[in-house]
Amino acid sequence: MRTVQAALAQPTRDDAGRRVHNFSPGPATLAEPVMQQIREELLNYRGLGASIMEISHRSPEFEAVLDDAVGLFRELTGLSADYCVLFVHGGGRMQFAAVPMNLVGRVASRKTLYVESGLFAATAAQSAAAFGEVQVVASSKATGFDRIPEVPPFDDDAAYLHITANNTVHGTQWRQFPDTGGVPLVADVTSELLARVVDYSRFGVAYGGMQKNVGPAGTAIVVVRKDLLGHALPSTPAPLNYTEMERAGSLVNTPCTFNIYVAKLTLQWLKEIGGITEIERRNRAKATLLYQCLDASGFYATSVRPADRSMMNVTFRLPSPRLTEQFVDQAHAEGLYALAGHRAVGGVRASLYNAMSLDGVQALVAFLREFERTQA
Amino acid sequence: MRTVQAALAQPTRDDAGRRVHNFSPGPATLAEPVMQQIREELLNYRGLGASIMEISHRSPEFEAVLDDAVGLFRELTGLSADYCVLFVHGGGRMQFAAVPMNLVGRVASRKTLYVESGLFAATAAQSAAAFGEVQVVASSKATGFDRIPEVPPFDDDAAYLHITANNTVHGTQWRQFPDTGGVPLVADVTSELLARVVDYSRFGVAYGGMQKNVGPAGTAIVVVRKDLLGHALPSTPAPLNYTEMERAGSLVNTPCTFNIYVAKLTLQWLKEIGGITEIERRNRAKATLLYQCLDASGFYATSVRPADRSMMNVTFRLPSPRLTEQFVDQAHAEGLYALAGHRAVGGVRASLYNAMSLDGVQALVAFLREFERTQA
Repeated sequence: MRTVQAALAQPTRDDAGRRVHNFSPGPATLAEPVMQQIREELLNYRGLGASIMEISHRSPEFEAVLDDAVGLFRELTGLSADYCVLFVHGGGRMQFAAVPMNLVGRVASRKTLYVESGLFAATAAQSAAAFGEVQVVASSKATGFDRIPEVPPFDDDAAYLHITANNTVHGTQWRQFPDTGGVPLVADVTSELLARVVDYSRFGVAYGGMQKNVGPAGTAIVVVRKDLLGHALPSTPAPLNYTEMERAGSLVNTPCTFNIYVAKLTLQWLKEIGGITEIERRNRAKATLLYQCLDASGFYATSVRPADRSMMNVTFRLPSPRLTEQFVDQAHAEGLYALAGHRAVGGVRASLYNAMSLDGVQALVAFLREFERTQA
Repeated sequence: MRTVQAALAQPTRDDAGRRVHNFSPGPATLAEPVMQQIREELLNYRGLGASIMEISHRSPEFEAVLDDAVGLFRELTGLSADYCVLFVHGGGRMQFAAVPMNLVGRVASRKTLYVESGLFAATAAQSAAAFGEVQVVASSKATGFDRIPEVPPFDDDAAYLHITANNTVHGTQWRQFPDTGGVPLVADVTSELLARVVDYSRFGVAYGGMQKNVGPAGTAIVVVRKDLLGHALPSTPAPLNYTEMERAGSLVNTPCTFNIYVAKLTLQWLKEIGGITEIERRNRAKATLLYQCLDASGFYATSVRPADRSMMNVTFRLPSPRLTEQFVDQAHAEGLYALAGHRAVGGVRASLYNAMSLDGVQALVAFLREFERTQA
């Protein structure tokens, strides 16, 4: 029998000693060196005799963590000085309200535009309805969200146009972002934050929950073009008010200090492995390997239009719900964890976020082939 | 020189081997057995081969954690079935907006009543002004928030009356809660959550950030009397909407899963040591020891009215700002961490939250006496 110490030394092995690859759609797997460092300094941060989660958000030690996190984010993304980076309580869903709260006040019409490319995109649009007129300018609902819809010409008196960069339930992703002219483009980048090279100067606001590629759940990173600040509705809670948050350097109140600490470690890890260019290369290699396996199979079926396939969430189906269940259970038993599709759509979903290794995808591909073979 | 392993084995020692007592006002010290357990299962939760922070909030493993946390909270507080317990993104400051968003819709007047007993109490009142008429029914501002003000008769057509149960900046605490008749009493209990026996049936809503007595920063525990549900303003963000949160069992979106996990461990620890009755006894003993030392001294001065002294935050002054600074620095060097008063008021503040040991307070008292002696 393995001891606790052995288990600790091998984070990606289960109690039976099997190598585990965690395909969770979020909260998702974090990089091993990050997890190891969290553990090493968990009880005694930098010799303080206290944990990073036990000290004030206004202590010099935590302020250094926050500064480093913001600085590394700016450095890795090449963000211009026209933008600020905020760490905000809650995930993408909180931003579904925070975005209109902060931006509809910019225009007399209080009009907002949304592209409905999936379940969460639709929820974002519904959330905005409490703050003004919402126009859904494009939708792929009629085809089961199997693609990114084309964006037709739209009214230019809107406060913003909102897209969901990666649709995690359905497995679609915008390859190129639409040109929205003078209307600020707002993007929910939750499922692809720091996963590919993105030109943030294309956006007015880009926000993403941390729990896919960056750290534990409960905090969003929000990138805001500074000229959009100053228009929050009076009823906006202070910790969601971009203007107040920018002024306070994300410290309007006590933030999720532990989450920001983990984000800093992840950003540092990303820098060490070669930055966003390198992680995008790895992500592309992982997704390509898996899609090639699926395309070569007559057993597994993908329904997303190839041009719009997500690098982050690969969705596919088996011939029956019974086989799907069997597949997910058997995969779990083999150390391939959390492959069930979103409860709204069923099927299988493999989430290949930044911390998923090529090894993991290779193991999944081997399992896919073996499972198909045993069904023949 | 001590090794990393030695440091890990002794969480409350700094790198020089000194015993550290962490008087941080929050994020605050957590119980040692809790921190040890976090570390033990950090990389491999219950043999999954993944961390608790890397798995879905809808996984059976996390759902068990959430159920346990709610169940233990109910059990330890003796909460009746008329109330629900929610885990909500953000701390007390987010609730300053969430409370009026959820409750002003109950009354045609949209009137709310606030008692201004300190800095955060005043901020709470200001936050409510965006949602309706705010009446400050009592204030101790004129006397520098040195006491809990008397509550005079008030209008009974208000949506609620809000108090701040413990004023962490100033060091005051309500001994007995006011009788508010048919007007629901709402309390910010951030700084005394789970620290003393409280009859929750006195409250309509009681909310508190976790970062003092329960876990890491970034999440609030909100106790809501169920008959107050159903009145949220349409603009309330879904993760702050008590009605939607109650319906979804706190899973409107991905919660701070790690924070809820730590809360569960802390609740379990509280249960093991004897529950709220026992922790109140310990908290009372700690505070009594420190106040007796201060009262016996001609050097240190307390300004809070004795009847309203906080058991959680003991505030006092030295003869000069220069001596205060010297005191705080020297204490830090002796392993007595984070004793500076809040930046708005200065002086010294010792926060004696649940996880602070009697040992720590004894060490502080010894230091107080020694520092006074060297100044004589």
